Amino acid sequence: MSFRPRLECWFEFASTYSYVGVMRAMNGATRAAVDLVWKPFLLGPLFRSQLGIQDSPFNVHPIRGRYMWRDLERLCEKYGFPFKRPTVFPRHSVLVSRVAIVGAEEPWGPDFIQSVFGANFAEDREISDPSVVAALLDLCGVVPEPVLEKARSKDLKAKLSAQTEQAANLGIFGAPNFIAKDELFFGQDRLDDAIAWALR
Amino acid sequence: MSFRPRLECWFEFASTYSYVGVMRAMNGATRAAVDLVWKPFLLGPLFRSQLGIQDSPFNVHPIRGRYMWRDLERLCEKYGFPFKRPTVFPRHSVLVSRVAIVGAEEPWGPDFIQSVFGANFAEDREISDPSVVAALLDLCGVVPEPVLEKARSKDLKAKLSAQTEQAANLGIFGAPNFIAKDELFFGQDRLDDAIAWALR
Repeated sequence: MSFRPRLECWFEFASTYSYVGVMRAMNGATRAAVDLVWKPFLLGPLFRSQLGIQDSPFNVHPIRGRYMWRDLERLCEKYGFPFKRPTVFPRHSVLVSRVAIVGAEEPWGPDFIQSVFGANFAEDREISDPSVVAALLDLCGVVPEPVLEKARSKDLKAKLSAQTEQAANLGIFGAPNFIAKDELFFGQDRLDDAIAWALR
Repeated sequence: MSFRPRLECWFEFASTYSYVGVMRAMNGATRAAVDLVWKPFLLGPLFRSQLGIQDSPFNVHPIRGRYMWRDLERLCEKYGFPFKRPTVFPRHSVLVSRVAIVGAEEPWGPDFIQSVFGANFAEDREISDPSVVAALLDLCGVVPEPVLEKARSKDLKAKLSAQTEQAANLGIFGAPNFIAKDELFFGQDRLDDAIAWALR
């Protein structure tokens, strides 16, 4: 059991700003000696119930989308993260989210999260393709089949649904988010504030 | 004529994050020796045409609104700006926007902008009330009546409409925004990036 400050990161693998937020959190939390707790969830059900839309708001509102892609490019340049605009957006993230939940308590969990974001937003790979997911697991030093099998189990499906429902109940409406001592911070922009809150 | 770097600040007096953004910009631009150019515009017409809504998105989507008010409180605490949640939101900003355009080339312009934001978000005063606007002008050392008369002229109405249309044409969809060398930065979070861009 750890007595270091805890920071929950609630993210969505399909979300552009989650890429920046997760990458920054991995660096920032290490520097600040804060323990990160990874909470993948699905934005789709939240957008459907909260906004009544079936697609990313960045596709539904092209003016916002155009700005977001330019902003993302600038942010990746600023922080030194590789970036290649994905040819498909948003990508289906159900399988990778379930795998990440399998990995939540495993040493390979954070590596897998990082490699999925890299595949989606730096390499333009199809993260919903099980063979891509298997290759990413393999790169993380994990034998893919047992993990994929577990990810497809009824139990894991229920866990991801529950986590998504929990996100909604926490007042989440986008991604990424950071929660420190029950305080919700939305957006990769709020990472430093969230870390400061965790260290209070 | 100035050869110092220029930063345009496109803001809306009714917008909560514009309060933080404008106050921060006033401090940050001075420190960075960047010239600020104030561009008040109206978000209402943009929200109507882009989103099809007749109210602030923070009222239309209460989940987002609840988060925003808490976030605003935290940001004001962080930056040391006074804050009192306004009893009316959003307040009509047409008159104060026109007055700010009158003041755009006047030495009292920035003082007036700051005093309107303070009235709305720190003192809960009705900034659409002409007597409040007159009192704010008076505080800025300006004789109110001639300015108010000018603000109500056909010319000024056209100028605010044109500025709002220009905002839409620039790809603006919210507030505040900063424009440095034709590069658009949305949100008070992007102030430092925008200043860095202006200084490139």
